[in-house]
Amino acid sequence: MDMPDGTTVGEAGERAVLARVFAALGGSSRAEVGPGDDAAVLAAPGGRVVVSTDTLVHGPDFRLAWSSGFDLGFKAAAVNLADIAAMGARPTALFVALALPDDTAIAFVEDLAAGLRAACEDLAPGCAVEGGDLTASDTLTLAVTAVGVLDGAAVLRSGARAGDIVAVAGQLGAAARGLAVLFDRFRDAQGHPVAVDAGILSDTERADLAAQLRPRPPIALGPVAAVSGATALMDVSDGLLLDATRMADASGVTIDLRPGLDDDALRGGDCALRGGEDHALLACFPPAAALPEGFREIGRVVPRGLHGGASVTIAGAPATGQLGWDPHRDWDAGRG
Amino acid sequence: MDMPDGTTVGEAGERAVLARVFAALGGSSRAEVGPGDDAAVLAAPGGRVVVSTDTLVHGPDFRLAWSSGFDLGFKAAAVNLADIAAMGARPTALFVALALPDDTAIAFVEDLAAGLRAACEDLAPGCAVEGGDLTASDTLTLAVTAVGVLDGAAVLRSGARAGDIVAVAGQLGAAARGLAVLFDRFRDAQGHPVAVDAGILSDTERADLAAQLRPRPPIALGPVAAVSGATALMDVSDGLLLDATRMADASGVTIDLRPGLDDDALRGGDCALRGGEDHALLACFPPAAALPEGFREIGRVVPRGLHGGASVTIAGAPATGQLGWDPHRDWDAGRG
Repeated sequence: MDMPDGTTVGEAGERAVLARVFAALGGSSRAEVGPGDDAAVLAAPGGRVVVSTDTLVHGPDFRLAWSSGFDLGFKAAAVNLADIAAMGARPTALFVALALPDDTAIAFVEDLAAGLRAACEDLAPGCAVEGGDLTASDTLTLAVTAVGVLDGAAVLRSGARAGDIVAVAGQLGAAARGLAVLFDRFRDAQGHPVAVDAGILSDTERADLAAQLRPRPPIALGPVAAVSGATALMDVSDGLLLDATRMADASGVTIDLRPGLDDDALRGGDCALRGGEDHALLACFPPAAALPEGFREIGRVVPRGLHGGASVTIAGAPATGQLGWDPHRDWDAGRG
Repeated sequence: MDMPDGTTVGEAGERAVLARVFAALGGSSRAEVGPGDDAAVLAAPGGRVVVSTDTLVHGPDFRLAWSSGFDLGFKAAAVNLADIAAMGARPTALFVALALPDDTAIAFVEDLAAGLRAACEDLAPGCAVEGGDLTASDTLTLAVTAVGVLDGAAVLRSGARAGDIVAVAGQLGAAARGLAVLFDRFRDAQGHPVAVDAGILSDTERADLAAQLRPRPPIALGPVAAVSGATALMDVSDGLLLDATRMADASGVTIDLRPGLDDDALRGGDCALRGGEDHALLACFPPAAALPEGFREIGRVVPRGLHGGASVTIAGAPATGQLGWDPHRDWDAGRG
């Protein structure tokens, strides 16, 4: 269907928007029954599936001045794929509930669908958008549900045992530094977001910005950790100290981070320790395990009580201060 | 945690809200791994799962002046359970992405969780909320994803064959009549929604209102239709004529509705034929089949072309006019 540039969702109507979305997804469905019926039918070869859901809302989670449709689709897919990987599972399908203001440009929605597809192809080959829902809303919202399959047992956050090696795969701190770039460099005098001009940024700043806008968590390493005997696994969405605290509490142990152990993981300072949105994988492996490629050691699990009962310590000293990421604070409580 | 009456989500914070939600869900999880880790792990005994997602947005889909939190949770569950039943599957899990304005009362959210739980218990025993997500938004939004399992083959909307019996289970028209009650009786002079006073309504109006606010689709009859040999199956969410058109087009046949055949299904007039939101099940069965209890015959499948190539006919005459439900029109395009 021919539509002039700038046609909006409200002008085009649901059927035309869906046609564009399906075209942008490019027939990538691999399900037994894909989009178009009341529900999708997915294979679950091991007799189990893993399911998670996560939402991005305009204001608290992203700003259109900073994120393109492609960025938004890519990030929405990536953060959901990470939750599946964090169980040791392989993602197989995404379901995307899209609530759009009537004045949203159709081109934006196509771009968003292209971003969803690209994230699946780049980060989780074999996974595709297999269903979704389109509704009208005053607030642009993407609720994505991801489904995956397990080749072995699920790896929970509660399985860490004293003596285990603590390891991480993926970036720590880059997404938080990228957010700082946005807040520091791309707001006007009133504090409102303005369009990003990547030309004024250094290479490092551009890389950090990409980590914020189009994060690339190490999805394939989730199942790798599982088959390599990981005892605990989760994704670092809210900051290393905060998520390590959750793992330690769920497991009834203390996680002792050792900054000297790793060149990359802990030298980034506060962003690496407390910054959110990287979706790195935090894993524990038995003491004698050889770490799978892509993981680097950042500490050890010790018995709870060894360091005064703290959940997380850094070289034996309890972690203090704001441990992690709070979207209400760090994304600026205003919803502009 | 003690909180004064009227405490809002913004005042209480995510952790306190989630604690209340889990309490209201009452430990109903039946999954291998339920809420609390990165993702849930669900059994898929037949090696396949069925997945669907559907969103309710304040304004286009509901109004808080008319729906309680319980109503909203019940309806969000019911419409998603219906999509699973419409594949011939048994629902096993719901995932609920909840985006809430900061000024939402915690009591409302608890009530919503109780509604989700009640719908599962009443309509789909064995199904429970197994995960979700809580975010801040200016627009109250519930995106629910439902997962189900198949005991046999999935029943698609594309399987209807000439000669098949067309049958329906569940109400047709009641939800649309209930919406008319809301618009006709519970708006102020400016057209804004005002609180429902059920005391001024007749028994029939009260029943129609309940069908609109807390629909009770015949979820258990989806798997029953499947094992009884249904050739095509879908839920009637947008009106019988419109959804029958979709089934007829997907199957390459004509569905001929025969008003004389059934006392209930077609006598309700325009609401029964064109009203949305009932989530009845529309099914086709082979010519010699005995209809399972709960289904009533409303027509026959005939070859496409017999009645001039129409998708749906009524006693041989093509259906005309607005075939079904359009939430943008029927829920009043304003988002008040």
